[in-house]
Amino acid sequence: MNNFTFKNATKIIFGKDTENQVGAEADRYGNRALLIYGGGSIKKYGLYDRVLKSLRDAGLDIIEFGGVQPNPRLSLAKKGIDLCRKENVDIIVAVGGGSVIDTAKTIAAGVYYEGDVWDFFVGKAELKKKIPVGVVLTIPAAGSESSISAVITNEDGWYKKGFDSELSRPEFAILNPEITFTLPPYQSACGATDMMAHIMERYFTNVKDLELTDRMCEAVLKTIINNTPAVLKEPDNYAARADIMWAGSIAHNNFLSTGRVGDWASHRIEHEISAIYDIAHGAGLAVIIPAWMKYVYKNDINRFAQFAVRVWGEEQDFYNPEKTALAGIERLTEFSRKIGMPVTLKEANIPYGRFEEMAGKCVRYGPVGNFVKLREEDILKILEIAK
Amino acid sequence: MNNFTFKNATKIIFGKDTENQVGAEADRYGNRALLIYGGGSIKKYGLYDRVLKSLRDAGLDIIEFGGVQPNPRLSLAKKGIDLCRKENVDIIVAVGGGSVIDTAKTIAAGVYYEGDVWDFFVGKAELKKKIPVGVVLTIPAAGSESSISAVITNEDGWYKKGFDSELSRPEFAILNPEITFTLPPYQSACGATDMMAHIMERYFTNVKDLELTDRMCEAVLKTIINNTPAVLKEPDNYAARADIMWAGSIAHNNFLSTGRVGDWASHRIEHEISAIYDIAHGAGLAVIIPAWMKYVYKNDINRFAQFAVRVWGEEQDFYNPEKTALAGIERLTEFSRKIGMPVTLKEANIPYGRFEEMAGKCVRYGPVGNFVKLREEDILKILEIAK
Repeated sequence: MNNFTFKNATKIIFGKDTENQVGAEADRYGNRALLIYGGGSIKKYGLYDRVLKSLRDAGLDIIEFGGVQPNPRLSLAKKGIDLCRKENVDIIVAVGGGSVIDTAKTIAAGVYYEGDVWDFFVGKAELKKKIPVGVVLTIPAAGSESSISAVITNEDGWYKKGFDSELSRPEFAILNPEITFTLPPYQSACGATDMMAHIMERYFTNVKDLELTDRMCEAVLKTIINNTPAVLKEPDNYAARADIMWAGSIAHNNFLSTGRVGDWASHRIEHEISAIYDIAHGAGLAVIIPAWMKYVYKNDINRFAQFAVRVWGEEQDFYNPEKTALAGIERLTEFSRKIGMPVTLKEANIPYGRFEEMAGKCVRYGPVGNFVKLREEDILKILEIAK
Repeated sequence: MNNFTFKNATKIIFGKDTENQVGAEADRYGNRALLIYGGGSIKKYGLYDRVLKSLRDAGLDIIEFGGVQPNPRLSLAKKGIDLCRKENVDIIVAVGGGSVIDTAKTIAAGVYYEGDVWDFFVGKAELKKKIPVGVVLTIPAAGSESSISAVITNEDGWYKKGFDSELSRPEFAILNPEITFTLPPYQSACGATDMMAHIMERYFTNVKDLELTDRMCEAVLKTIINNTPAVLKEPDNYAARADIMWAGSIAHNNFLSTGRVGDWASHRIEHEISAIYDIAHGAGLAVIIPAWMKYVYKNDINRFAQFAVRVWGEEQDFYNPEKTALAGIERLTEFSRKIGMPVTLKEANIPYGRFEEMAGKCVRYGPVGNFVKLREEDILKILEIAK
């Protein structure tokens, strides 16, 4: 186990009707709230009205900022920064999934920063001060509601990049599983895939002696695997939605990284795909992760065998652990198919013409991944496997 | 899963040599530090010198307050409160295990409170303001380094009581597993028992639909079970000490309680024993928990069978789950024996003469326990089973 520092500063408010607490929570941070959200779905099911009422009942002035799209854009975040400055916003309330929250985090980071907020994403500046962010989560997937990360696409070159800062964690996050009852199956499956990916990126590591966090990762993965088919079949299964929703936060709040070094190559590769083709991040991960696994598993066959046995319930082949390792990867692929995810680039409708461009952009700051360091030629091979 | 709010405000700084960061961390909170510790062991192995140097290098004035004993006393905490007021202390730095940290938390709570600090323990007052607390942990056991709880014994009647407040969480906790290399086997085993008890108290609940937190509880329990024999055999096994140390915090920071209602009757019964007989809390729990289990398991045989199968690796007897449930309790008892814990009151040298007194004090505010509500006569029966 490596040395680590861990503090999850986000207050989690979880359960039925909790969105009605958003006003009281936001009110702790000031009087003027930027209310940021995406398309119309929060209006369709009444969430928008409940959030607005709660904020107004708490006496907050509300500045609205709707229209955030999936794979959110830098230009929109910049408009939000200008608006916050003009309107003297005290707190940003994000109602939505990862795209809305990541946009909120980017705006929050940019308000007090004199330079271009993109500087944080390319490592040219370190976040020192931000305005507070509160979240009402609608899509359990990205884990952004309590993570240190925000991911934004810069339209100037279609670069999709993440920016990590402990200061970026939202001040509070409200998670009501009932709000997710209306999530379509495809989006629920993408979300489950994203959170599983967050755990697998942490699980496959070269750091030794990690029994505690290995077992915790396995516990959360098994829970997601067991509950995802249930939420697809019964969208209003509260127990399953609740386990999935809390799992999504735990998957990415860095608790499961304590003492570990994650890999993150699959995320980097997927970002290049979704920056160009605008597919759902979860779907992209469902394609890339098994391809990545097939390419790298020989780096630590025992770890992949442990994954197969402990997460998927495979029996260890004691004379041929490689067979067990490969069975685990196959089980993951089968699971993705079962929940309706694409498992090849073809199934995801991604054409094959721009592999070199994507691989090149992926390694523009050097090799990616920690479990196995990947160069341009490795990424091309993984994309070939993913065909 | 029940609704919950969760925020663990304690910053965890974990790993080799981290005690040298105590000065820099404490310095964020002011200039004058009360350094609180127990007996001489921290001086014997050089920890005292390293902590003192780090605090001094950071420019802090140090007021020493040593001599905290196991099952710490209210009178000592009151002396600490007076000292903090007199010396205008800004932060308390606790170097030790649960007794030292609980004393520090009690002092921190009392400094700004005009009444008797015992008021917090008997529910006569709510904590509103405290002075900050930093921890350098020496004994992984109580989990007090990041928990909301403090337990103190009031010599006036020998009442041992806990006091819970979110505000009581220490501001930071430094966990260096190397510091625990010198812990004697008996103390290491008591610590492991205490942290297992913290998880089992949460595990046995009547709340339904808890797959995620059930699996996480099981993950941490299995890790403690696997690593405790290793630390007893090889006191300087860093990997095992590290898993145990981090597990001890996770066991009691309420992460594993999210959405659940814990039982806590065993802790209440044990407190009555150790208040009178001054035995180690872990040893008392090793005696009481299996007796409690034998008395209550019929309340939910499936839960005890799940515990046996998932935590202890028992095979489910599908035609007779009660047999599996009982096998799990037996495995726990065997484990306690293996690590040198007493499993009966006799083995713990507790005489049988004061059962009625203990049972009476235990229920003086009403029945205890949530999995099964226990009255005086139930506690007497559990003490009989524990003989």
